[in-house]
Amino acid sequence: MNRHLLTIDDLGVDGLHQVLDLTDRFVEVSQRPIPKVPALRGKTVATLFFEDSTRTRVSFETAARRLSADTMAFAPRGSSLSKGESLRDTALTLGAMGPDCVVVRHSAAGAAHQLARWVDAAVINAGDGWHAHPTQALLDAYTIRQALGSLAGARITIVGDIKHSRVARSNIAAFGALGARVTVVGPPTLMPPAIDTWNVDVSHDLDTALATSDVVYLLRVQQERQAEALLPSLREYSDRWGLTEARAARLPPGAVIMHPGPMNRGVEIADSVADSVASLVTRQVANGVAVRMAVLFLLLAAPEQAADPAEIPTPDLEAADA
Amino acid sequence: MNRHLLTIDDLGVDGLHQVLDLTDRFVEVSQRPIPKVPALRGKTVATLFFEDSTRTRVSFETAARRLSADTMAFAPRGSSLSKGESLRDTALTLGAMGPDCVVVRHSAAGAAHQLARWVDAAVINAGDGWHAHPTQALLDAYTIRQALGSLAGARITIVGDIKHSRVARSNIAAFGALGARVTVVGPPTLMPPAIDTWNVDVSHDLDTALATSDVVYLLRVQQERQAEALLPSLREYSDRWGLTEARAARLPPGAVIMHPGPMNRGVEIADSVADSVASLVTRQVANGVAVRMAVLFLLLAAPEQAADPAEIPTPDLEAADA
Amino acid sequence: MNRHLLTIDDLGVDGLHQVLDLTDRFVEVSQRPIPKVPALRGKTVATLFFEDSTRTRVSFETAARRLSADTMAFAPRGSSLSKGESLRDTALTLGAMGPDCVVVRHSAAGAAHQLARWVDAAVINAGDGWHAHPTQALLDAYTIRQALGSLAGARITIVGDIKHSRVARSNIAAFGALGARVTVVGPPTLMPPAIDTWNVDVSHDLDTALATSDVVYLLRVQQERQAEALLPSLREYSDRWGLTEARAARLPPGAVIMHPGPMNRGVEIADSVADSVASLVTRQVANGVAVRMAVLFLLLAAPEQAADPAEIPTPDLEAADA
Repeated sequence: MNRHLLTIDDLGVDGLHQVLDLTDRFVEVSQRPIPKVPALRGKTVATLFFEDSTRTRVSFETAARRLSADTMAFAPRGSSLSKGESLRDTALTLGAMGPDCVVVRHSAAGAAHQLARWVDAAVINAGDGWHAHPTQALLDAYTIRQALGSLAGARITIVGDIKHSRVARSNIAAFGALGARVTVVGPPTLMPPAIDTWNVDVSHDLDTALATSDVVYLLRVQQERQAEALLPSLREYSDRWGLTEARAARLPPGAVIMHPGPMNRGVEIADSVADSVASLVTRQVANGVAVRMAVLFLLLAAPEQAADPAEIPTPDLEAADA
Repeated sequence: MNRHLLTIDDLGVDGLHQVLDLTDRFVEVSQRPIPKVPALRGKTVATLFFEDSTRTRVSFETAARRLSADTMAFAPRGSSLSKGESLRDTALTLGAMGPDCVVVRHSAAGAAHQLARWVDAAVINAGDGWHAHPTQALLDAYTIRQALGSLAGARITIVGDIKHSRVARSNIAAFGALGARVTVVGPPTLMPPAIDTWNVDVSHDLDTALATSDVVYLLRVQQERQAEALLPSLREYSDRWGLTEARAARLPPGAVIMHPGPMNRGVEIADSVADSVASLVTRQVANGVAVRMAVLFLLLAAPEQAADPAEIPTPDLEAADA
Repeated sequence: MNRHLLTIDDLGVDGLHQVLDLTDRFVEVSQRPIPKVPALRGKTVATLFFEDSTRTRVSFETAARRLSADTMAFAPRGSSLSKGESLRDTALTLGAMGPDCVVVRHSAAGAAHQLARWVDAAVINAGDGWHAHPTQALLDAYTIRQALGSLAGARITIVGDIKHSRVARSNIAAFGALGARVTVVGPPTLMPPAIDTWNVDVSHDLDTALATSDVVYLLRVQQERQAEALLPSLREYSDRWGLTEARAARLPPGAVIMHPGPMNRGVEIADSVADSVASLVTRQVANGVAVRMAVLFLLLAAPEQAADPAEIPTPDLEAADA
């Protein structure tokens, strides 16, 4: 594994399998009465979220604490930090305080890459603009593997605002590398112009796509797209692209439904569908903690332990005395 | 004890005594140079505060940390979370991250009860609308017991905005169950319509009530009640219902003065009265940490330790090696 | 050392040397793979920041955690806390929760002194109005000692808004006590009226002052001074008082450049100068953690360990098992 996790491409196919295999181990740890191991004792994981996201930040913090690491929340405020120079100075300041890892979210594509040049710590991209959100893709890939056994040959349909979605970009990279066949569906105004170069099928007929999907992955509707006239009314969106009960009934037996959260119930997903047994939304969140434990372990503990970095390191998963 | 602490009624009289007896032990722990025991090592206590309250949140976090538990602050922001559906999705998300306990504050009565249906964790209600705030009542009951020896037969007068007060509701339940005689006094516009069913005496003459009170408990004036025309001017409120120096002089010898904080000095309580030896306000805050340690211990450690749940568990209060 | 750290004058010359000598030890600890020692295990350090400052708060929290102390973030919000009475009630509330140390920042000069009267804990002033910011001065003095070997005889020029700067006041006190010769330079409108009583040289000619400076210390321009008509345009400020590349070239060989951060690049300091090898800005941040470890150790651990408080206590710097 590289020193940083900035995009799914950083990992390569072997790296993807390595993370998913290791996640199995941390899912087991997470189910213990005391879900804590001493692997990262004395290390410090800093979070640097320029965009607010309690769920992602807490997921990383929980993962860090289950590995016995300390956490440091560096919450920048104010508009001066939207300028490139200030990102650099913030990075240098945070870096000077000596964290072992910085988990960063920023509205600008490329922010995590820049950060990785400026700090000594390992950098994890927790979302940069429309560009990438690799740990989301890892937890989604893990959840699909858990449900279907493998992604190889799986037919996955991603629905919604592909153009503005870092989740879509990272998921397409991960799912494709793991052998899935990905179809994207959504309003033409929300498709990226270069979609034909993305190695996905594009469909404008959701009902047909669903009939042959093993996984349907719904993206969150960003209501601010309405102001840009890229989105019809929410009602219309729901009629055309929402996973209503009638549409969910078209899915083959055993197909599963996913969403990165938070859901707009009644817009991209019907209430009853979100709560159906086919929905893995809560499972995604639980797996998110375990997958982030695996990533933190690989970046921070494995380099010290692995003689051959190509080997899957065997974490010491003896219970911590907490 | 039940799995959750949602209202004082959940506890019953035996449960109330159990918490207060156990609090004695944790008051002792809190006075040690290193006020920390290993009882909840490896457990995680999440806080989910939809209404901001630094003092209550930090009190719970301090209690958790003195028991060697980890904490997880899940701070929801933005208006989408005021809708019932979103509370549920937030609960499912937080629950999926695996906390052992969720401490929740919400502006809607019943929010904590709903949460308890949605998460596996033990739920502690840290205030839900006008409905209940049981740990406040427990710390108040403990503080009175510490001052007077017992609540049995104690004459307690609660003054102010009874109608909109979860503190009043929970205190009336706790004080009554422990044998106190409670009188409520306040502006008629701030009395709940069904007050005659509450098993309290209602007085409209504060001066007379004070003359026979062992405890006077002042509620915080919410200045937003003025906009609703439920409250006269603050000056007028102070004249009629405030504990001025002259009024405090009417209290019997040994009577004590309490307030849940933060105080509006010069409105419901005079400056000099707040700082007098009869005022237990700071003692309430200190006891709050110990009472919350007792509640967390009973919910999270006792079930594993107690053979007979009716027994008061004996916590291992050996010093933690921290 | 006193019980509190409120101003540089509290320390005296011996105290200053004691902190700087101890900082050497904690710089060594901070460079270990696991930069953590058990010195303050079981102690609690509370932060009470009425003014937001992520960098200073995180620096103290990091220092506390490297000493194995717990932290408690008491973040007051809302305007009611700007009144003196409320500061007192907030202090009493926080104090009742039993922290061993309170690190306070407040917009009013004297706030930390008042707090020290109201709580049992050791109080560290992390900035009070224009008055004092002693740990900033300590980290600056340490950084200069590290660069030059000693402050005795060093020629230090402080540039900018001296009048409104607690950093300037604390630095002048520390640098002077340690034997440096301090010159202040800046717009006449931003000089304090009583500057002749401050035991510094005042210059209005930056270029001349730079030619004989071992250290140039740039203060942050507060853009709100423009509204008060105390500041010309930023362009004009930069021309007259900014450390441009041309001006930096006038510095003697070996001279160093400092700034408390965050920097306004292009205003008080040119981009290329901020990033030059002479700039110690990042080093200041790193030293800030170590100096705060020294202060926390002296306030919280040393009193228990030192028989003779005049002795430099020898901290147990065995690695914590974290």
